[in-house]
Amino acid sequence: MSAKKAKKVVKKKTTVKNEEKPRKQPEVVIKAHLVENRVVTEDSDESRALFNQGAYGKMVENKVQLSLLEAFYLLEKNKIEVIDKRKPLTFEKFLKTAKKTEPNFWIRYCVFKDFRNRGYIIKTALKFGADFRIYDRGVKPGEDHAKWIVYPVAEGATLTWHDFAAKNRVAHSTKKRLLMAVVDDEADVTYYEVAWKRP
Amino acid sequence: MSAKKAKKVVKKKTTVKNEEKPRKQPEVVIKAHLVENRVVTEDSDESRALFNQGAYGKMVENKVQLSLLEAFYLLEKNKIEVIDKRKPLTFEKFLKTAKKTEPNFWIRYCVFKDFRNRGYIIKTALKFGADFRIYDRGVKPGEDHAKWIVYPVAEGATLTWHDFAAKNRVAHSTKKRLLMAVVDDEADVTYYEVAWKRP
Amino acid sequence: MSAKKAKKVVKKKTTVKNEEKPRKQPEVVIKAHLVENRVVTEDSDESRALFNQGAYGKMVENKVQLSLLEAFYLLEKNKIEVIDKRKPLTFEKFLKTAKKTEPNFWIRYCVFKDFRNRGYIIKTALKFGADFRIYDRGVKPGEDHAKWIVYPVAEGATLTWHDFAAKNRVAHSTKKRLLMAVVDDEADVTYYEVAWKRP
Amino acid sequence: MSAKKAKKVVKKKTTVKNEEKPRKQPEVVIKAHLVENRVVTEDSDESRALFNQGAYGKMVENKVQLSLLEAFYLLEKNKIEVIDKRKPLTFEKFLKTAKKTEPNFWIRYCVFKDFRNRGYIIKTALKFGADFRIYDRGVKPGEDHAKWIVYPVAEGATLTWHDFAAKNRVAHSTKKRLLMAVVDDEADVTYYEVAWKRP
Repeated sequence: MSAKKAKKVVKKKTTVKNEEKPRKQPEVVIKAHLVENRVVTEDSDESRALFNQGAYGKMVENKVQLSLLEAFYLLEKNKIEVIDKRKPLTFEKFLKTAKKTEPNFWIRYCVFKDFRNRGYIIKTALKFGADFRIYDRGVKPGEDHAKWIVYPVAEGATLTWHDFAAKNRVAHSTKKRLLMAVVDDEADVTYYEVAWKRP
Repeated sequence: MSAKKAKKVVKKKTTVKNEEKPRKQPEVVIKAHLVENRVVTEDSDESRALFNQGAYGKMVENKVQLSLLEAFYLLEKNKIEVIDKRKPLTFEKFLKTAKKTEPNFWIRYCVFKDFRNRGYIIKTALKFGADFRIYDRGVKPGEDHAKWIVYPVAEGATLTWHDFAAKNRVAHSTKKRLLMAVVDDEADVTYYEVAWKRP
Repeated sequence: MSAKKAKKVVKKKTTVKNEEKPRKQPEVVIKAHLVENRVVTEDSDESRALFNQGAYGKMVENKVQLSLLEAFYLLEKNKIEVIDKRKPLTFEKFLKTAKKTEPNFWIRYCVFKDFRNRGYIIKTALKFGADFRIYDRGVKPGEDHAKWIVYPVAEGATLTWHDFAAKNRVAHSTKKRLLMAVVDDEADVTYYEVAWKRP
Repeated sequence: MSAKKAKKVVKKKTTVKNEEKPRKQPEVVIKAHLVENRVVTEDSDESRALFNQGAYGKMVENKVQLSLLEAFYLLEKNKIEVIDKRKPLTFEKFLKTAKKTEPNFWIRYCVFKDFRNRGYIIKTALKFGADFRIYDRGVKPGEDHAKWIVYPVAEGATLTWHDFAAKNRVAHSTKKRLLMAVVDDEADVTYYEVAWKRP
């Protein structure tokens, strides 16, 4: 997201909170609970819609189990409220908690958020040996194979060619396209598609 | 900064502390937390002033998210205190942590600091294909385009003319002026403006 | 080329010399002179064929002026003999001399050779801000635009994401495709095509 | 000069030699003698015009003393004939001789030629600590100060920041602008103007 857009979003959010709320039908904020490194929603139609329409989390006994990334995203979007020890978690508190179990949570979240904001469904790709797998726009997991695997990196990191080669090998063997997602100091993400070539 | 100058600055600081304190309102030191490769300030007017007046970081939920470079600079200037695992980070500890995630942190910081000390706003330029972008004095991001892109290099490094040509091409295609910032062993920075010419 | 493959090639050459010579018209070895960082061929039809058919070097006064890369390749292929100070240069001597004026000669040569072996014409791309430009198979310089720009790197080297971004910017602004050519310790080259994406 | 232009020039020259000569008033080719590392013209109006109109060489006893670069350029342009040991020197022979006294003759010549072709007067800048000094278009030595000092380098060379700093220091102290002239494998020259900056 560009600096300009970021400002607009901030403005909009503030406006929503202070002025538009009374005029607008208040959106239902789904209650959810932090359970170890998952967030489990309440048993409601609204929460199941997260799974059915948004492809968030997975269904476990009529409730939706969200990953920390998904929960953080929905928290930021004001769609859910996350309860921990009977109190709603603040943004900061959530982040701190998430960081404990996932050291690269922030960098990964920047990329997760960017794809979600662009209308893509993004899921973990641990089984493939990558951070994320992304489905083409409009495609839901299960309907078709993921198109890309994605590796988020921070702009200040450096790149060894051995790492680079390993990531390409993973993409090649899983028949997915490889995206390097470089997160800059302003949390903007730049993408590079990489493909092994035999010229 | 040369070793000599560094000593002077230290002296000046001491003077400030000992003599001017009684006359001056003691400066508020903003509390901030290290979160991965970001530093997030507390929710306060003083911290928001960092963003609004100083153009540091970006606003996320009423707090300011600083890059490691920005946080280190503000730490050095005694404007913030950075908490990690419930304890304030020392200068050295911060540097160590930063270097782990950003191997070129020191060289880049020397340039970042030098520009900030001279009254310029300096931001990442990853999207432009460079390390930094600099706004003209008095210009804030968003008000006008950045004037320069900057590449920090260590004095002992070598460069190929192909790399040199690439950096010029980047500057040319982004319509910015190119500065090579050579950081010497005493952390002093020498600047060279380079422009492709057709004589 | 791997050490193993290198040995095979050497063997093959020996075979050619010992058995096929009687059957085949002996190939003319073109005489050429080392002049600084160029190699200038003799004035002959065979040498002009290097330029006209092979797109090597450039014509200057009925002779062909070869770059060190081109000359080294033709020397290795036994097409030319390079005279310096009245004596033919050995392979090793040529390499030593070349490395003096061009410190990255070997890494760049590995990539040059690999493309030539695959039937591509590869030329300098300094003006584009890259090491090499490559024409599509069967295309000669002047007939069409180059398709790729190529950056050779040693497998042990590291790269910053800022450098990576710069190379992509160069490719984008010159409307060419970007190839990173990673040269391993056995002189084999692995290619990665990289493209900036907006998902 | 681009590859295309190079071809045209070659063609034109051939045409001139073979066909147009009879139709056109034959141009006077000035006789000159190689005297150590100088070339001294005959005593004639035509040769003095080289100095008076072209700002080539210097006047010594009614004759013009040309540098090797100047002589080579005029030889290539078919304006002079250089006699050594009673025989006209061929191009190649001249180059070989020149290389003995000036090891970087070829790279320097590429730059010398490019400036002369563009209508600039280019002279040695040894006294300034540089390779060349260039006068603005239309300016002759003596009428005004040189505008640039120029350092020719080969594209395959690498650049140390200490060298780079030294060249800038020279330019700054002689109050001239600094041009780095990078000669690529096709003998084309790319120019970068460099200026020391205090931002």
